[in-house]
Amino acid sequence: MNIGICGLGTVACGVISVWQRNQSLLTSRAGQNSVITHIGARRDNPACDTHAYTVSRDIFAVVNDPSVDVVVELIGGIEPARQLVMEAIAAGKHVVTANKALIAEHGDEILAAAALADVEVRFEAAVAGGIPVIKALTEGLSGNAIESIVGIINGTGNYILTEMREKNRSFEDALADAQRLGYAEADPTYDVEGIDAAQKLTILAALAYGTPLDASRCYTEGISAVSVADMTYANELGYCIKHLGIARATKQGLEMRVHPALIPKSRLIANVNGVLNAVAIHGDAVGPTLFCGAGAGAEPTASAVIADIVDISRKMACGSKVSSDVSAAPSEPQASVQAALHRVVPITDIHCAYYLRIAAANRPGVLSQITQVLSDADISVEGVRQHEHTVGAHTHTNEPVPIVLTTNVTLESNFRAAVAQIEMLDTVLQPVSIIRIESVD
Amino acid sequence: MNIGICGLGTVACGVISVWQRNQSLLTSRAGQNSVITHIGARRDNPACDTHAYTVSRDIFAVVNDPSVDVVVELIGGIEPARQLVMEAIAAGKHVVTANKALIAEHGDEILAAAALADVEVRFEAAVAGGIPVIKALTEGLSGNAIESIVGIINGTGNYILTEMREKNRSFEDALADAQRLGYAEADPTYDVEGIDAAQKLTILAALAYGTPLDASRCYTEGISAVSVADMTYANELGYCIKHLGIARATKQGLEMRVHPALIPKSRLIANVNGVLNAVAIHGDAVGPTLFCGAGAGAEPTASAVIADIVDISRKMACGSKVSSDVSAAPSEPQASVQAALHRVVPITDIHCAYYLRIAAANRPGVLSQITQVLSDADISVEGVRQHEHTVGAHTHTNEPVPIVLTTNVTLESNFRAAVAQIEMLDTVLQPVSIIRIESVD
Repeated sequence: MNIGICGLGTVACGVISVWQRNQSLLTSRAGQNSVITHIGARRDNPACDTHAYTVSRDIFAVVNDPSVDVVVELIGGIEPARQLVMEAIAAGKHVVTANKALIAEHGDEILAAAALADVEVRFEAAVAGGIPVIKALTEGLSGNAIESIVGIINGTGNYILTEMREKNRSFEDALADAQRLGYAEADPTYDVEGIDAAQKLTILAALAYGTPLDASRCYTEGISAVSVADMTYANELGYCIKHLGIARATKQGLEMRVHPALIPKSRLIANVNGVLNAVAIHGDAVGPTLFCGAGAGAEPTASAVIADIVDISRKMACGSKVSSDVSAAPSEPQASVQAALHRVVPITDIHCAYYLRIAAANRPGVLSQITQVLSDADISVEGVRQHEHTVGAHTHTNEPVPIVLTTNVTLESNFRAAVAQIEMLDTVLQPVSIIRIESVD
Repeated sequence: MNIGICGLGTVACGVISVWQRNQSLLTSRAGQNSVITHIGARRDNPACDTHAYTVSRDIFAVVNDPSVDVVVELIGGIEPARQLVMEAIAAGKHVVTANKALIAEHGDEILAAAALADVEVRFEAAVAGGIPVIKALTEGLSGNAIESIVGIINGTGNYILTEMREKNRSFEDALADAQRLGYAEADPTYDVEGIDAAQKLTILAALAYGTPLDASRCYTEGISAVSVADMTYANELGYCIKHLGIARATKQGLEMRVHPALIPKSRLIANVNGVLNAVAIHGDAVGPTLFCGAGAGAEPTASAVIADIVDISRKMACGSKVSSDVSAAPSEPQASVQAALHRVVPITDIHCAYYLRIAAANRPGVLSQITQVLSDADISVEGVRQHEHTVGAHTHTNEPVPIVLTTNVTLESNFRAAVAQIEMLDTVLQPVSIIRIESVD
C-alpha cells in the first residue's frame, strides 16, 4: 500500500519519523508492506529527511499520483484541505486527516462522498491527539447507547487552568507562558474561547449520536473569565475548575456545550493536569470509562494518524478494497430517542448545579438577601463561603466582600433569572460570576 | 449474521439483555442485521428470558448448528471451553470469548487454528472487562513500539486495597466484605494471589510484544501479605499501594510481573479505586496513556463481548468472510529487540526502588546499622519513617519498633542480599516486609 502525505509541518514530520523508526513493526501490523512514497509540500522542512520519497511542491500532485492508495491530509485549515480531500475521494483513494475544523465543518459532505466512492475517511487524530477515543467510541464501545461524553479536549486550556490552580497565576500570565512554550498560538482565541473544543465535541457527538457535523450547534464559553479567586474558592469547596466539552443524551434532546466547570476533586478527570487530554464516556452497558493521554504534539498526533493508516492497510490486505464500514460514520441512535437527539437543548433549558461569586457590600444582611432570592426561585444553597478581607488589611465598608455559593441542580433559565435579581440588589456591587458544576461519574 | 451463545451465566445474561435493549442501534453499527439465534446451556437462568431463541442443553449443538456464524463462548474454565472453541474454529465459525484462562493458557494453539481456518477469535472481554484495552493496544496504538503496560487488572484486589486504605480495615476483613458483595469468590486465591492478573497481563504482553501465551512466565505475587500498617506508612511517604500487572520492554528482555507496588499519590492510576480497573500503556510515539473503567460485572463485560461481535459483523458485511486480520494476533516487535523480548527477565534481575518495613529492637543505633548495610550494597535511602509506639502506650523496650525506609533504584538481587543481611542483625526481630515502588508516568 502506498501512502501519500500532504503537508510537511510538525505532525507530518512526526508521522514520517515514527513510520521510519517503527517500519518493521508497522509492516507486520499492517498485514502488508505499506510505505510512504510521495510527499506534497510547498517547501522542505529541515526537521525532516525526505530524500527517500518523491516530493512535489504541489500537494494536488499527491492526489493525482495513481500509485498512491491513501492520502494523508496534514495541511490543516479549510481550503484547500477540503478540495484536496474531495479530489482524493473522487480519485478512489482512502483519506486520513488530523483536521478537526475540516471534519467539524464539512464532515457530512466529506463522509457522504466517501460512502458513495466506497473509500474510508479516518480522523482519529482530529480529537484528543494520541488518545484512540474515536476508535473507543465507534468500535470499542459499539455495544452501548452513549449516555454522555465529558472531555478535557483542549490541552492549551488545561495547561492554563492547571498553572492558575497550582501556582496561583493569573489567566494572562499562564497564557503568556503557554505561548512561550508553544502550547498556545499567537492568537489564542481558538483554544481559550472554546472553539477548538467545540469542533472536537461536535465530532464526538456526531459519532455517538448521529447528529450533523455542525459546530455552530454547540454552546461555547471560554476560560478567559475564570479568575484565580474562583480557583481558590472552588478548591476550598472541594472542586477543581476544568474546561469541559459535554455531550449528553436527555429526554429533551442532546446537550452540547463547552464551558468551564467545577468538578469534585475526587473525580479521576479532575486530576488530569497540564497539557493532557481526557475523555470520559458513559455507556449504558459499560458505565463510566475514562481515556487519557497527550492531546497534541507531533508524535502523539502521529500515533493516531498511523493507527488510521494501519487500519486501512489491514482492510485492504484482507481483500476488501470496497468498504461499507460504518465505524467512522455517524451511527443511528435508537429510533425512540433519535428524533429527540437531533434537537440540541438550548443552554437555558439544561439542568445544572452552579457556583456563584458575588461582590457584595460589607453590610449585615446581604447574605440573607441573596439566599432569599435563591429560595424564592426554589434553588437550594449547598455550600457557602463568605470571605473576610485579606488578613491584615483594614476593613473598609466601601470595599466589596466576596460571597461564594454553590446551589443544587436547577433549570438554567430559572437560575439566570435569580442571578439577574441578585444583580439588582443595591448591596451587590458587580456582575455575578457563575460557573456550572458537573459531577462527572 | 447469526450469533450462538454458549453458557447462560451472569455475562451471557448481560450480553442477551444489552443486545435486546440496543437492537436497532447494533443493527445500524454492525452494518447488517445481526441476531442472537441459538443458546446452549445445561439449564435455564431465571434472570434471562430466552423464549425467542433456540435453546439447546448441549453447548456443542450451537457449534454444530450450520446457521450460526459466530460462537460466543461464555462457559468459562479450560475444558470443555477449549474443545468448544476448537470445534467452532474447525467448523469455520468466528469465536468471541471472555475466557482469560483459556486464552492465557491455550491462546497460541487457538489463534494458530483460527489463522489456518481464516476465522476471527476475539477476546476483548478477557482483559479489564468493559475497557476496550485490547483494541487500544492492537489498533488504536498500532503505530507505537510499546514501552510498558502497567495495569490494575483485578477489580477484587483493587477493592480490597481501597477498603484497607480508606477505612483502615485488615486484609481479611476487606476480603470478607468483597465476598459478601460478590466481588470475590468463596476461594479467593485466583484474585488475591495474582493468578487472574497474571493471565490478563500475559494476554496484553502477547499482543504488545508477540510473546507466547504462557502465564507461567509471569512473576506473580499476591496482596495477602499487605498490611494496614504498610498502607499507613506508604500514605505518609506520599504513596498508594496498588496491585499491578507490569510488562516492560528492556534491553535485558521482557519484564512480566504481578505484585503489590507503591505508586506516588499524584499519579492518575493511583487514584483508580474500588472495583475499577485501569491500564496505563506507554507507547514510543504517543507517550503515556491511561484507559479506565469497569473491569468486571455483567453489562461491562457484555459491552466488550458485543464490541467483538460487532467488529466481526462489520467485516462480514464488507464482504470479507475470509480474514487475515492481525489485530488480535501477536504482533512482531521490532526485529532488533524481538530476540531480547522473548526472554523474560528473572525477577532478581529487574531494577526497582523499594519500600522496607522493619520490626526492630527499641535500642539506639539500630537505624544506623540498617542504613550501613544498605550503604555497603550501594543502595541510597530516599525516605525514612521511624515510628514511635502508638500514642498513649507505654514504651516497652522488648516491643519491636517499626522502621520504614524507601530506597533508590537498584538491582533486585542486590537488594535481596542486603535485606537478608538486615534480617541477620540481632536488632531486627522479624522478617522484613518489602514492596516494590513503581513511578508509572
